[in-house]
Amino acid sequence: MSDLHDLTRKLQRQNDQKIVLLVADGLGGLPIEPGGGTELETASTPNMDALAAAGTLGLSTPVIPGIAPGSGPGHLGLFGYDPLEYQIGRGVLEALGIDFELGSSDVAIRGNFCTLDDNGNIEDRRAGRVASEIASKLCEKLDTIEIPGVEVFVRHVKEYRLVIVFRGEGLGGDVNDTDPQKTGVTPLDPVGGDGPSQETAEICTQFLAQAREILKDDLPANFLTMRGIDTKPDVPPMSEVYGVRAGAIAVYPMYRGLARLVGMDVLDAGQTLDSQMDRLQATWDDYDFFFVHFKYTDSTGEDGNFPEKVKRVEELDAAMPRITALNPGALVITGDHSTPCKMKSHSFHPVPVLISSDLCRPDACQTFGETACISGGLGQFPAKYLMGLALAHADRLEKFGA
Amino acid sequence: MSDLHDLTRKLQRQNDQKIVLLVADGLGGLPIEPGGGTELETASTPNMDALAAAGTLGLSTPVIPGIAPGSGPGHLGLFGYDPLEYQIGRGVLEALGIDFELGSSDVAIRGNFCTLDDNGNIEDRRAGRVASEIASKLCEKLDTIEIPGVEVFVRHVKEYRLVIVFRGEGLGGDVNDTDPQKTGVTPLDPVGGDGPSQETAEICTQFLAQAREILKDDLPANFLTMRGIDTKPDVPPMSEVYGVRAGAIAVYPMYRGLARLVGMDVLDAGQTLDSQMDRLQATWDDYDFFFVHFKYTDSTGEDGNFPEKVKRVEELDAAMPRITALNPGALVITGDHSTPCKMKSHSFHPVPVLISSDLCRPDACQTFGETACISGGLGQFPAKYLMGLALAHADRLEKFGA
Repeated sequence: MSDLHDLTRKLQRQNDQKIVLLVADGLGGLPIEPGGGTELETASTPNMDALAAAGTLGLSTPVIPGIAPGSGPGHLGLFGYDPLEYQIGRGVLEALGIDFELGSSDVAIRGNFCTLDDNGNIEDRRAGRVASEIASKLCEKLDTIEIPGVEVFVRHVKEYRLVIVFRGEGLGGDVNDTDPQKTGVTPLDPVGGDGPSQETAEICTQFLAQAREILKDDLPANFLTMRGIDTKPDVPPMSEVYGVRAGAIAVYPMYRGLARLVGMDVLDAGQTLDSQMDRLQATWDDYDFFFVHFKYTDSTGEDGNFPEKVKRVEELDAAMPRITALNPGALVITGDHSTPCKMKSHSFHPVPVLISSDLCRPDACQTFGETACISGGLGQFPAKYLMGLALAHADRLEKFGA
Repeated sequence: MSDLHDLTRKLQRQNDQKIVLLVADGLGGLPIEPGGGTELETASTPNMDALAAAGTLGLSTPVIPGIAPGSGPGHLGLFGYDPLEYQIGRGVLEALGIDFELGSSDVAIRGNFCTLDDNGNIEDRRAGRVASEIASKLCEKLDTIEIPGVEVFVRHVKEYRLVIVFRGEGLGGDVNDTDPQKTGVTPLDPVGGDGPSQETAEICTQFLAQAREILKDDLPANFLTMRGIDTKPDVPPMSEVYGVRAGAIAVYPMYRGLARLVGMDVLDAGQTLDSQMDRLQATWDDYDFFFVHFKYTDSTGEDGNFPEKVKRVEELDAAMPRITALNPGALVITGDHSTPCKMKSHSFHPVPVLISSDLCRPDACQTFGETACISGGLGQFPAKYLMGLALAHADRLEKFGA
């Protein structure tokens, strides 16, 4: 993948063409009934169908065939970063998910409040799913912990979940989980797999000692375990690899975090698709590339609510005129993975892709849907190539070689 | 490719869904007449057509476009082992082909009986295609050869062909062929390319010296040459990389050997498709993954017998209800390569793939054939990805990343 970025670094071209990457999370689907259409095919999408008729369709493979990706790898692929090369630890993703601004040398850790019995053994790995109001107060107490040589941040996520960040120099991310994954035993000690990670493990040990003292009277959350201890991956920013000023318009923090990870400016998206469109319009002149994220095609898929996912697709379709009115050089509509209502989960199925641009080579497709995409002009391709296609369709890449 | 197995190792999920990989050897074909159908398209295949209509089709590329594979790379690809990474030496394949159970540190060698003249020059590289009855007796004599520090096995294959196996510790496989590929010259001396292979070469030299003495009166087979001297490749077993108990139901020894190479249990297949189906049914509860091999689509292709290959495809189709009655989580029907009757040989053409599963995303295909497969929902993909797709369609892979 470094190869691909070596290419785009060398070939990037400046112009005034804008690129919009509209990600309908979990867009791909499955029919519920044999012979039926998918969610996208069932939805009435006159605007996207018109774009499909004039544009080019295809199917993208988020990672490799057969693999269902989480949101992290799904989005990194769309942004042109090989998800097998850039792997994001659980702690880092959790920090991104609460809009925490990770620095480049931070170690991020997912914490779980737990209950210890009188012998120091874990009685409940989730502290009885302690209420958020209580847990957030405990996080404030933990946030006061001081460890020489590092800055310590503790942030509450939800119920028993929290994020711990150590900001220092030269800390490693190869430290085991302290959660033993069962009850009736003591939490594990953090151990580093190499020199820099031993330093991290030592800091974890100090943190846990202080935390035990601070929490000792706070049953059921009288201690915590650590999981997914990891450093922020070293991701070159989009401005450098593609030569674009990139802005993210996403309602949910996880996606803002992923956008921040690849160097996008995170813009105020408000809470609705309408407010996202307002922001797109308002910042149109300030950026070359916009990532617009729509969550509800995924959440309705996870719920297994076929009619509601259909409605959400239609809601998205209705917003298309606001984007096309801005006359982007290239508009890409796709998902980060499929979330078929039939499976109520992310799936391995390839993801519909629509590119609309003056430079599109048309195919025979007249509507936007999974079956149409099979015979689309883009074919089936790894998602990591989508950014190159987007840049090319906005005429933002020079010729390779003479 | 190690990446792919790193992924499947991490993501494997246990459930009670069974996978059947039905390999019709050399399935892909070509029309004989312009405008005609291929063998598969000409055959009447109502059962596979019904599976195609509800399932998903595609085309797999055994190695890379343009490359016709042998049986070894063809099957390794299907089993998810990159055939360019895991290369099987001629000697190893020959040993697999006679059901010889190779140990992990064995060196296997293909031997050819030859005729030496009075000056020790090769007069006939195949010993006048010596009769099998004679050659097998000579192999029994050679099997008595003893070399300190290694076990020696000599097995007859057919006519002038034999297999020699050295079982020892730390033997290398980088030794030249002793067959000079021409007559009128002496056989070459075995020379090792590195330390461990020099040891192997020394053992070969000792073996050849004893063999020359044993065979000296056995004209026309008064000596032998060695080819394809190689160690068994270090292939991680399917149980480990995919988390499946895998069983092979193959009539021909070569395919049993290839299955054994990737760690499958080799089950008694009998001699007919019917007895194979009996075995499938009888062992259904004992395995998660079944490799069922059908040879005759390849052998009729090699013979250039179009009507007979068509008949063999129809014979296979008639067996489908016995498989579907078992209700597999995923049924994959494909070949290891194409063997068009028109070419009477393995060919480079992509191979039809049919996946039948509740998790299939349907495409527009209504029949199983090469032309239909072009517009199948799986697209065209390297064969090494098929195992991931099979696992995914049987819901046996966790999500990658959070």
